[in-house]
Amino acid sequence: MADLETPALPVARTIAELRETVSGWRRQGFSVGFVPTMGALHDGHLSLVRAAIERTDKVVASVFVNPTQFAAHEDLGTYPRQEARDAELLAGAGCELMYAPAVEEMYPAGATTRIDVGGPAAGLEGAFRPQMFGGVALVVAKLFNQVQPDVAVFGEKDWQQLMVVRRLVRDLDIPVEIVGMPTARDGHGLALSSRNAYLSAAELETARRLNGVLAEAGARAAAGEAVQAVEADAADALLGAGFDVVDYVAIRRAEDLAPFERIIDGPARILAAARVGRTRLIDNLAV
Amino acid sequence: MADLETPALPVARTIAELRETVSGWRRQGFSVGFVPTMGALHDGHLSLVRAAIERTDKVVASVFVNPTQFAAHEDLGTYPRQEARDAELLAGAGCELMYAPAVEEMYPAGATTRIDVGGPAAGLEGAFRPQMFGGVALVVAKLFNQVQPDVAVFGEKDWQQLMVVRRLVRDLDIPVEIVGMPTARDGHGLALSSRNAYLSAAELETARRLNGVLAEAGARAAAGEAVQAVEADAADALLGAGFDVVDYVAIRRAEDLAPFERIIDGPARILAAARVGRTRLIDNLAV
Repeated sequence: MADLETPALPVARTIAELRETVSGWRRQGFSVGFVPTMGALHDGHLSLVRAAIERTDKVVASVFVNPTQFAAHEDLGTYPRQEARDAELLAGAGCELMYAPAVEEMYPAGATTRIDVGGPAAGLEGAFRPQMFGGVALVVAKLFNQVQPDVAVFGEKDWQQLMVVRRLVRDLDIPVEIVGMPTARDGHGLALSSRNAYLSAAELETARRLNGVLAEAGARAAAGEAVQAVEADAADALLGAGFDVVDYVAIRRAEDLAPFERIIDGPARILAAARVGRTRLIDNLAV
Repeated sequence: MADLETPALPVARTIAELRETVSGWRRQGFSVGFVPTMGALHDGHLSLVRAAIERTDKVVASVFVNPTQFAAHEDLGTYPRQEARDAELLAGAGCELMYAPAVEEMYPAGATTRIDVGGPAAGLEGAFRPQMFGGVALVVAKLFNQVQPDVAVFGEKDWQQLMVVRRLVRDLDIPVEIVGMPTARDGHGLALSSRNAYLSAAELETARRLNGVLAEAGARAAAGEAVQAVEADAADALLGAGFDVVDYVAIRRAEDLAPFERIIDGPARILAAARVGRTRLIDNLAV
């Protein structure tokens, strides 16, 4: 039930409706912030909305489960969808427009263009989910051209995605400022994720160990230990904590995700993807 | 020497300079037209500038010989460059800004993103110059994001390129109207091209036969003759007229360049690429 204090959030279903609202804001001289999401919103998303509100006059959030970034065997069909609740949460956070296009509006018949960002999109998620960053780059480029925001806010939880988006924006000269926000976590350090909804109570206990294992490994690498040994130990620790499969634990240069043997120059990041039961989780920390 | 009646054209060398001028125009409420070129301007380019002026308040033309659309063996190094004369011609046609960035401004070190338009980019020029349309799509996407024009004007002489740009704009939802203008020709029907400067007097005579051969073949196809036979006869006619190599003569659906056996539904186009001496020429006509 909608709170009486929170008026219903306007929803744009088409590019034309979206542009009508945004160009109205523009005519009044307002700056525009944008938060792209796949819905099933949690406090992490809402912190992005609040960050956009701090930086711009009017904020639009998209809710679109993007099929081009899922592989056939992945969870596109079961990905959580709760649009009415998402609209309430966005309105409560101060967002002024939800953009929720149908798949046919985003990808009309006959569309053929693909984007390959290269660079930071290679390896890690790009290796385990080869369709992922091409799909992300395409939908983000389209969303930016549809919304034309001054500022767009992404979470650091998807660190590699954030680096891919920054590379895309730089390489195509897209006139938008990209802001990355720290990962929101529960009281046990677990990164908030829409996919946490898939976890059983026992799996949740395991999932909550991920962050601590990465923090300890990051500290060892920062102290000068060889990266490869630290990565291997962290992967073992995750298996010991109850994860069923560790896709990767990797310590990389923060910006372009290039590998190195020891952390010697510039910011580094430790990133991991691991599966518990049928759920695949990712997390990362500054080293 | 500059005509006293034609004040020197302002030239932007960087994205920042370009955006400063264009955003000044925007603040004054002016609409913006854009004509991307590789310089070595002729009357064909100037007709595009005039078309942009008819449709918008302020027109910027870019002069940039785009290295990403040339293969290593092609004429990037010898492609004609005459920037001072180009600036005079643009000013005389009513263009108000020339954007002539250095290669390093357009492609800074570390750039990795690539665009594959697919669809109309496959086959014909895409087969004979595999690097071509990826390079075109990348530079056009960048230029659109740099200039942010309301209208961009392209020549129909590069018909396949025009279809690729239309597809790119549609697929990425780039907020620009694409206008295609008829091919400018000399008194003998030869499509104006910066590469015509490469032709000897004898080669020029051969080059001038291209348009007539295509017109005759197009008429036969329009009358219902089988496409493949018409294409083969036209290729023979070009060799007979003195062309050394015929890369292709192809009758295709106009919009997506899909092949067909007979012209039965919708607009068609006849397109050809042929070499005389060391010069490769292209042309096309509505069927």
